[in-house]
Amino acid sequence: MRNGNQTAAVKNFDLWIRNDFKQLNTQLEEIYFAQSDRSDVNCQTSVTKPLTNELTEAGRTYIAALLKEGNTDSGFDAGFDLLGNVGLYMAACRRHDITEPSRETKSPLIEASALAMQIGASLGVTPRFSTSHLTTHNSAINGLYKSFTSLEDEILFLDYNTRGILAYMRTADALLKILPMGISHPLTGDMLHVAKQGLQDVIKYNDILFNELNVERFFHCVRPYYKPYRVGQNEYRGANAGDFAGINVIDLLLGVCQGDDPYYSQILVDKFLFMLPEEQATLRDCMRRESLLDSMLSVTPEQISSPWFKENGALFLEVLELHGYAASQHHNQLVERFIAQMAKNESQQAYEKVTASGPPLPVLLRSLEKLKDLRCATERDDIPSRYAEIQLLKARIA
Amino acid sequence: MRNGNQTAAVKNFDLWIRNDFKQLNTQLEEIYFAQSDRSDVNCQTSVTKPLTNELTEAGRTYIAALLKEGNTDSGFDAGFDLLGNVGLYMAACRRHDITEPSRETKSPLIEASALAMQIGASLGVTPRFSTSHLTTHNSAINGLYKSFTSLEDEILFLDYNTRGILAYMRTADALLKILPMGISHPLTGDMLHVAKQGLQDVIKYNDILFNELNVERFFHCVRPYYKPYRVGQNEYRGANAGDFAGINVIDLLLGVCQGDDPYYSQILVDKFLFMLPEEQATLRDCMRRESLLDSMLSVTPEQISSPWFKENGALFLEVLELHGYAASQHHNQLVERFIAQMAKNESQQAYEKVTASGPPLPVLLRSLEKLKDLRCATERDDIPSRYAEIQLLKARIA
Amino acid sequence: MRNGNQTAAVKNFDLWIRNDFKQLNTQLEEIYFAQSDRSDVNCQTSVTKPLTNELTEAGRTYIAALLKEGNTDSGFDAGFDLLGNVGLYMAACRRHDITEPSRETKSPLIEASALAMQIGASLGVTPRFSTSHLTTHNSAINGLYKSFTSLEDEILFLDYNTRGILAYMRTADALLKILPMGISHPLTGDMLHVAKQGLQDVIKYNDILFNELNVERFFHCVRPYYKPYRVGQNEYRGANAGDFAGINVIDLLLGVCQGDDPYYSQILVDKFLFMLPEEQATLRDCMRRESLLDSMLSVTPEQISSPWFKENGALFLEVLELHGYAASQHHNQLVERFIAQMAKNESQQAYEKVTASGPPLPVLLRSLEKLKDLRCATERDDIPSRYAEIQLLKARIA
Amino acid sequence: MRNGNQTAAVKNFDLWIRNDFKQLNTQLEEIYFAQSDRSDVNCQTSVTKPLTNELTEAGRTYIAALLKEGNTDSGFDAGFDLLGNVGLYMAACRRHDITEPSRETKSPLIEASALAMQIGASLGVTPRFSTSHLTTHNSAINGLYKSFTSLEDEILFLDYNTRGILAYMRTADALLKILPMGISHPLTGDMLHVAKQGLQDVIKYNDILFNELNVERFFHCVRPYYKPYRVGQNEYRGANAGDFAGINVIDLLLGVCQGDDPYYSQILVDKFLFMLPEEQATLRDCMRRESLLDSMLSVTPEQISSPWFKENGALFLEVLELHGYAASQHHNQLVERFIAQMAKNESQQAYEKVTASGPPLPVLLRSLEKLKDLRCATERDDIPSRYAEIQLLKARIA
Ligand code: HEM
Ligand code: HEM
Repeated sequence: MRNGNQTAAVKNFDLWIRNDFKQLNTQLEEIYFAQSDRSDVNCQTSVTKPLTNELTEAGRTYIAALLKEGNTDSGFDAGFDLLGNVGLYMAACRRHDITEPSRETKSPLIEASALAMQIGASLGVTPRFSTSHLTTHNSAINGLYKSFTSLEDEILFLDYNTRGILAYMRTADALLKILPMGISHPLTGDMLHVAKQGLQDVIKYNDILFNELNVERFFHCVRPYYKPYRVGQNEYRGANAGDFAGINVIDLLLGVCQGDDPYYSQILVDKFLFMLPEEQATLRDCMRRESLLDSMLSVTPEQISSPWFKENGALFLEVLELHGYAASQHHNQLVERFIAQMAKNESQQAYEKVTASGPPLPVLLRSLEKLKDLRCATERDDIPSRYAEIQLLKARIA
Repeated sequence: MRNGNQTAAVKNFDLWIRNDFKQLNTQLEEIYFAQSDRSDVNCQTSVTKPLTNELTEAGRTYIAALLKEGNTDSGFDAGFDLLGNVGLYMAACRRHDITEPSRETKSPLIEASALAMQIGASLGVTPRFSTSHLTTHNSAINGLYKSFTSLEDEILFLDYNTRGILAYMRTADALLKILPMGISHPLTGDMLHVAKQGLQDVIKYNDILFNELNVERFFHCVRPYYKPYRVGQNEYRGANAGDFAGINVIDLLLGVCQGDDPYYSQILVDKFLFMLPEEQATLRDCMRRESLLDSMLSVTPEQISSPWFKENGALFLEVLELHGYAASQHHNQLVERFIAQMAKNESQQAYEKVTASGPPLPVLLRSLEKLKDLRCATERDDIPSRYAEIQLLKARIA
Repeated sequence: MRNGNQTAAVKNFDLWIRNDFKQLNTQLEEIYFAQSDRSDVNCQTSVTKPLTNELTEAGRTYIAALLKEGNTDSGFDAGFDLLGNVGLYMAACRRHDITEPSRETKSPLIEASALAMQIGASLGVTPRFSTSHLTTHNSAINGLYKSFTSLEDEILFLDYNTRGILAYMRTADALLKILPMGISHPLTGDMLHVAKQGLQDVIKYNDILFNELNVERFFHCVRPYYKPYRVGQNEYRGANAGDFAGINVIDLLLGVCQGDDPYYSQILVDKFLFMLPEEQATLRDCMRRESLLDSMLSVTPEQISSPWFKENGALFLEVLELHGYAASQHHNQLVERFIAQMAKNESQQAYEKVTASGPPLPVLLRSLEKLKDLRCATERDDIPSRYAEIQLLKARIA
Repeated sequence: MRNGNQTAAVKNFDLWIRNDFKQLNTQLEEIYFAQSDRSDVNCQTSVTKPLTNELTEAGRTYIAALLKEGNTDSGFDAGFDLLGNVGLYMAACRRHDITEPSRETKSPLIEASALAMQIGASLGVTPRFSTSHLTTHNSAINGLYKSFTSLEDEILFLDYNTRGILAYMRTADALLKILPMGISHPLTGDMLHVAKQGLQDVIKYNDILFNELNVERFFHCVRPYYKPYRVGQNEYRGANAGDFAGINVIDLLLGVCQGDDPYYSQILVDKFLFMLPEEQATLRDCMRRESLLDSMLSVTPEQISSPWFKENGALFLEVLELHGYAASQHHNQLVERFIAQMAKNESQQAYEKVTASGPPLPVLLRSLEKLKDLRCATERDDIPSRYAEIQLLKARIA
């Protein structure tokens, strides 16, 4: 991104986000973390109030200056970056309970809402911060990218989230290249190899997260910034690491998830505006394609005995396997360890807050399990898992 | 639209929508309309049940066939048309109380939801029927376009809604042409003339609607099809004649509404996916432009005395005037007569149904009034009306 | 267009184009026009040399500053505007014979070529000035838009070119609206009316040009700026008033010209990059549509006797008629009077210059005649004129 | 690509291209290759005439059927695929001297030209076959993709061209990911690693081509199909393995080539329409970005001593090195061995044919050498090589 034509107001706000804002959040996190009940967030105590007030008011001042400037014609990159900054501010206000969607019918952050809605609408994305703001589109200055706090666990989390996303993207790009060539093309094997490498990288990064991320810190000091919040009247669900097209491109092209499955298309419908416009376009295009699985299953009997079918088929099954493995790792290790287990320790009241404005945690977990089982092609008859088709393919290739 | 590559399943469903579906709805309307309480819709009486059952089941069967066919790669036009048909079906189910969003957490029309979400997501539009499906993108066969019923008041309503929309579009197109030429260009006057004609047409059509549309029929037999309904888990607000870019392009280019006004950007945010993708793009582009009002106000003192300023300024004020006039006509005549007055006659229970799932009627009316006052540049200090600026401009031109 | 973020180098060049550049050209035109042989352009005489030198060198200096600045990220509008300015400069150099494509293998205007190629490539348009730079996208400052000279005949020519283009665009927009509604839609008649008005306006403007434009001035002082010139190594044909999508949209939608006619698709192929990207997209989309003529001819026998067919058919024939009339007016009046007749008076050498780098004039005229005859649906069997089909349609409607 | 809605005419033509067409070309190649003068192509001998006649006429028949069908609304993929087939046919006619651009003023293949122009124009690409038709977008059926002949050297050439292109694309994608993160981002190193791997793959594939491709066969039986040919009136330059965006994205992002260098922007201008529309968009976007080299050079003095600068800087230099290496390998090995050397053995007349319609071979080679030297950042002062800047960067990193 070129920052050449950033106005002063844009620059000042960005500097604030990268410095004071981060420091205020970090100080507040240390306060909460030192409490006997780490989940007891109160922005009105004598210790927190000066900090949360400064956060709220300084942000408001910067944003008011931006609104006044009314510089709305600075290109996608600059607009998207600014939306991210406004979003980080609004998410922090939510995290510190300065705003709380169930308490309000519209966001009390009037100026921030106005700016976010204007930019979001004009760019064709949801008017809140989304995952890419902190990962793939998080510009670093002298080695430091934006984050809510300077806690090392947040940085670790972001580093490996981003790595995982980028690796999934490489896999998706490789699978997309297969579409115009077809499953029997001599170079399809090359692309399946690239896809495999990408997924192996994802698995490696998941492992590192699992082993190195501090559970307490993540649960209490990082995750709360990813809650739903209101912008104007609407409440927007929290950002999550899946808010990029690649993961769904993989699901759809491999064939393990399907656009006409209402469970899955609901996920897509709810996700589109959390992605960058070009990612939206890629995913849309992908929805109308035949999956590799379906292509593999529709070959003629003679082709089944051809070398290309055995080779590409075997590679394809390996990719399927790895995709399922990464999904179960995500579910059984990351979600389980960093959220499900932690939530159990919470008081009833805090437990409910864990899932504030989303579905209750058990419901969420059941839904995530479905997704995992689709990706693993688990034998289940309550969801359109491709277990049977994949068994058939295995038999044909064996 | 070319129907050349419609599959049989698509064609059959379309034929059903254009024939039996319309007839079933019409029969049901005549039943309700003959009741002492016309608002008492019950799909389970001995008279209605056979009809609503047939409607529900026939629709479900056609849609199941479509899902099975899985023909998702037929281009935007065909997909959008099909989404419209699914949407008409879902809206009719809602109108006959077969579904009711406040009663459910997800649509009981599983197959229809699946198909609608798949198409909506893949096209980048809201997964419900939207205004264009019944107006500008409602293909006629042998002189008949699609409608819920064959009641003449529905046809009258649709004819003049469409005429109004097309006239607003001509105005918007003319104003957009001014942007690259600038307010002082010798041909800007030509474009302001075209803009005027478009608005005069809108006013003429509004008048006809006001005088010719039967109030009872509209309120009881047409409007109920425009209610919010769920698709999958989400509830989507009803379609309204404003779901096209042109009206907002006019607002923004004239300068009477502004993208950084949270009230107005909320409207835009909520509206984008109800528009066709190319309209979304036009409106987005428009949001980053300087309004003609602001351009007019920022001319240098010497230019104020130039002939072009007097001429184009005077024409611009006429356009402003007409836009405000059409808005107040919409509000004080159409909304007032066909909705506000009618709603007053309703029982409390029915009254609440009038605005089911939207805000309560008084709230809606207050919000619509704001919009009208912005468009009329009414002197109000609780909203960012451009009253003062327009007075200033008038003074300069006088 | 917002000029807020124009750099100084961009602004200075623009000011020069709007002032000194125009004055230099005007002075040179007066010199040539006063010559006994008005076509004898020589940039090296003692009178012309100081002027042409200043023009060449001042332009080069401004452009060198722009190249050095390297500001390439300022959005489409600003880039396109700048390309226009570079193009006006290069076209003037060509007009004054400072450059001449048949004499060179690449443009001696190195810096201008570099800038034009960079911008053209990055915007997806031809790297020369095109018609829209002087018509629909020619921004006025205090009532004056850009032009080569301040001669009133150039202004008259541009005013009415622009008016004609804008009127054709209104016609095209109206016809495009018919596509999703179909030929039998109750509002298709409205759109055909709008189309008619647009064409009537075109005819009116053509008339004014015919009557008011000074032949000598146009031929000698305006048209020479529209010659082909080189940018880098490639020679680009001259700009002409037809370089917008609307005219071809009308041809194709009415059905008088067809995309699979090699004569016509050659025209389209050669024209695409002379249009704005959004116009390119519109025309492309249009190429895959069924024409209204074909739709009209494929109605079932029963529909032929329906009122909509008689009404919309009659209106459609009126639109066809007007389109043909405007085309023959263009050919028989404008081209004939302002070019063909004038060229006859030229010396052999100058005569050849008239069509320098394009085909010889008689060839060009024959080709233009074909186009006119397609648009008029003249009875000719050497070109795929739709004469027979239109006669058939007339018979059915009568 | 889904072939579900291919019409019979499309399918038949495709089958012909994949079978008889390929066999005819192969037979003709064996005839020429058996001649004492392999370059003496004559389509009128008693041996060749039956074959070239069949090729010409069968192709014409299939294409005439396609034109008659007039199925122009089948989506980008199907249209692009069909254009490729028409293009292979036209290129083969050119190769067998059935057409020859310098002999004609327009292509004698009237129907093929008409279809190619219609599709090319409607898709926004050049109306001839381009590299992607034979590489990344060459769909295989039962393991066989399209090719001119069944000669193993053509397959080897295509396999490794495609591999090279796909590897360059991975490099480009990785570099593009750096833009929103910036050169100092902790994950930029990851992306530079991916970029390195891609280039190492390119180098490996180039090596294989160099060692395994038969020089005689390539020069006499493969390359001649890549000559320029006319479509309608225009002559289009031959396809080459560089007609994809990635290679230029790498040039521009690394900073070794620059959009305002007239030599390089000429290359880009001439190349755009040979790329797929989405590649055109990517390259366009890329042209307005700051190169990584320029970003690296503009860091503040303090940053120079930071670890990220040393690390990412060193990796960046490795990527630069590899890009230069691959370029010199292409130039000094592939172009030299397979073209320059071979051409030397040709008779004067045949020598001229080598470069028919392109520039004379020595001119072409000099131009390619420039490109190589830019990519290698060779110390040359007649071209804007970045030698000095890269030396500076090396010094700062050391
Ligand atoms: C009987 C005739 C009409 C009635 C009763 C009516 C009523 C309403 C109501 C109640 C709304 C608020 C949204 C909702 O709850 O649906 C609305 C919105 C809107 N209507 Fe109408 N309407 C009528 C005809 C028209 C016509 C002919 C047009 C011209 C195109 C039009 C343009 C709009 C627009 C642009 C909006 C969106 C809000 C805005 O931007 O103003 N309406 N209408
Ligand atoms: C036998 C192998 C090859 C030969 C003889 C060869 C030769 C040439 C020649 C002569 C050109 C100049 C344009 C023309 O006249 O066609 C060219 C262009 C090009 N070739 Fe190759 N090539 C070979 C393989 C490859 C491969 C494997 C790649 C990798 C993708 C490649 C990439 C390019 C590129 C990118 C260009 C465009 C000019 C540029 O940007 O460098 N070539 N090639």
